[in-house]
Amino acid sequence: MDANLLSELLRRLKEKRPLVHHITNYVTVNDCANVTLFIGAAPVMAEAKEEVADMVSLAGALVLNIGTLRREQVDAMLIAGQKANELGVPVILDPVGAGATRYRTEVAARLLQQLQIAIIKGNAGEIGTMAGTGGVVRGVDSEGVSGDPVQVCRTLADLSGAVVVMSGPADIVTDGKRTVMVDNGHELMGRISGTGCMASSLVGAFAPASEDHVATSTAALVAFGIAGERAAKRVNGPYAFKAALMDEVAALSPEDLAQEARTRTL
Amino acid sequence: MDANLLSELLRRLKEKRPLVHHITNYVTVNDCANVTLFIGAAPVMAEAKEEVADMVSLAGALVLNIGTLRREQVDAMLIAGQKANELGVPVILDPVGAGATRYRTEVAARLLQQLQIAIIKGNAGEIGTMAGTGGVVRGVDSEGVSGDPVQVCRTLADLSGAVVVMSGPADIVTDGKRTVMVDNGHELMGRISGTGCMASSLVGAFAPASEDHVATSTAALVAFGIAGERAAKRVNGPYAFKAALMDEVAALSPEDLAQEARTRTL
Amino acid sequence: MDANLLSELLRRLKEKRPLVHHITNYVTVNDCANVTLFIGAAPVMAEAKEEVADMVSLAGALVLNIGTLRREQVDAMLIAGQKANELGVPVILDPVGAGATRYRTEVAARLLQQLQIAIIKGNAGEIGTMAGTGGVVRGVDSEGVSGDPVQVCRTLADLSGAVVVMSGPADIVTDGKRTVMVDNGHELMGRISGTGCMASSLVGAFAPASEDHVATSTAALVAFGIAGERAAKRVNGPYAFKAALMDEVAALSPEDLAQEARTRTL
Repeated sequence: MDANLLSELLRRLKEKRPLVHHITNYVTVNDCANVTLFIGAAPVMAEAKEEVADMVSLAGALVLNIGTLRREQVDAMLIAGQKANELGVPVILDPVGAGATRYRTEVAARLLQQLQIAIIKGNAGEIGTMAGTGGVVRGVDSEGVSGDPVQVCRTLADLSGAVVVMSGPADIVTDGKRTVMVDNGHELMGRISGTGCMASSLVGAFAPASEDHVATSTAALVAFGIAGERAAKRVNGPYAFKAALMDEVAALSPEDLAQEARTRTL
Repeated sequence: MDANLLSELLRRLKEKRPLVHHITNYVTVNDCANVTLFIGAAPVMAEAKEEVADMVSLAGALVLNIGTLRREQVDAMLIAGQKANELGVPVILDPVGAGATRYRTEVAARLLQQLQIAIIKGNAGEIGTMAGTGGVVRGVDSEGVSGDPVQVCRTLADLSGAVVVMSGPADIVTDGKRTVMVDNGHELMGRISGTGCMASSLVGAFAPASEDHVATSTAALVAFGIAGERAAKRVNGPYAFKAALMDEVAALSPEDLAQEARTRTL
Repeated sequence: MDANLLSELLRRLKEKRPLVHHITNYVTVNDCANVTLFIGAAPVMAEAKEEVADMVSLAGALVLNIGTLRREQVDAMLIAGQKANELGVPVILDPVGAGATRYRTEVAARLLQQLQIAIIKGNAGEIGTMAGTGGVVRGVDSEGVSGDPVQVCRTLADLSGAVVVMSGPADIVTDGKRTVMVDNGHELMGRISGTGCMASSLVGAFAPASEDHVATSTAALVAFGIAGERAAKRVNGPYAFKAALMDEVAALSPEDLAQEARTRTL
């Protein structure tokens, strides 16, 4: 994908400073807030049924992350999501742990059915589960997917009408027709809690920058991956890496994306 | 304000080690716990309706932060607040996001009406909203206030009977009559998630040190500001700054406040 | 206790990579997730009543931490605990703040009564409260215990049938008959929020490595203590210490336990 386009998307993100409304889990929520802030957007977390429609009306994107879902939260996700759909605010779904329990699988499916999801982002097991082609998830970790991962992503994109993002050694982004592989990133990103959620927040932060969500999602993963590569050069331990990763996200410029993006279009 | 008084307040805080009962949001709660601990107080977070009255009975201060409010949490805030009022435990209200949604604005107003709030601490948009003089809040960020900020704070102090603290490039502390500006601080403090909440926790930690809450609130902001100034000298990235800020709070001595406080009385 | 056995337990943990299902508080949950990951296990946090039985069926251990308990969470703890008991999954109880409020004391007692708890881990005040021999807890901090701490632990072990772990300058591990003192550790571990919870997560991570939970709990505390000793050599401030502690946990090898364990059998 044209690296200058990715660069331009980060420029627009920083200009717009979109509000990114999250309804998310309580494990990694602080990381999501900071990474959203550091890339140049404005995070807000709000999940009271009484306010989510109001809050999403101010937002550039809505991120729904089911990492520690509770029934009340699911209700709030539906209310916020419907309002977002009405207003044309893109909705990002991270179906954390779909496949690990029936409840998560069902909730993820319900959100996908009842809302118009712009982007679904998950690991291989979660995406395989959502696609119905088979995925194994233990807790919140992917233990693998049946079949060719790219094909699985395309299947889910076709089924759902959403852009599908599968994280992995090379990330996959597809709308069913165009497919981009993102090679930026570092294996240390898989050794800490929260990078999956942070990636979803960044996907949300970039989403308002263009209606082409293959491009915006690719830009988010490229940005995060470059930050990861740079952080890995500076530190050793995984927790020190997390801190360095955060600061490298904060330091990213549009030019960095133009120069260091590594993507392949299939 | 007399820097020796501010110094004395930190000395008393460290001697008393007050329990600071928080009912707060799940985004920055860990930061609030650590900063409370590091200044020399003892944090506890408890929000079950069944226990909040008991918990606040052990406490030196109660901090109510509506950053991710839910209805059950509001109920718990009212129960805890009423018990605190009975016992003379000072209640600190941080109306996070008031003005962004009707629900937040209403809940903040209800807490202010039904409880005797000792100190209200917010950003310009939140304080302007609470004062009814006009404030713009997007998510949890202030987008400005109508009129002179000092006058807005005085108006809210007069209306509510509370000491009002407005964070900003220079923080404002007023009871409607006495007004103190705090010049300590660093702009990096505005680039990370959680500093507003941490400041409220510190305001809570200092509150039991004296009944003069203009003084205790000023001492809290001076202490946090000095820590921010020192941290900014040591590091670059915002996340590294956050870690340094935490450690500088832990390293503060009463003498530091005596020597480095920068306040102006209006 | 034989240091080679402790070493062997870490080796088994890393081989098995057990899923550790947490129902825990929202203050320290991110720390619990990362420390579980860094020692070599897989954390998952799930508390919806609709899914906890499914989730615990995948798990090697269940950690129940009442640090910010809510009624719905208690219900979920009972459902998850009963399923864990059916399946033989060890249940670890951290009765955070038991003794500080009646509700916490009652909930902790109810969990102990209605579930078969494999390991109870708390500070002196909490364990004294649970044993019924007297303990003082302010917020979540122990303010002391009546009588000899070792005897208090043995009393609770006899009453409950659980292995009892009491944190302190020297940690105590006992099943009522065998008692081990763990001398590894550093006083900085008591100066940050979350180390108690992290220790419980590690106790959970080691629990599936053997049915001898005196040994697995000792191994967890030795591992955490060694990491603390190493971290304290590298840094000054408490927040920097926390980051270093995390990375030292990640760096621990089974050989480290064999060489640096400091335990005494009473």
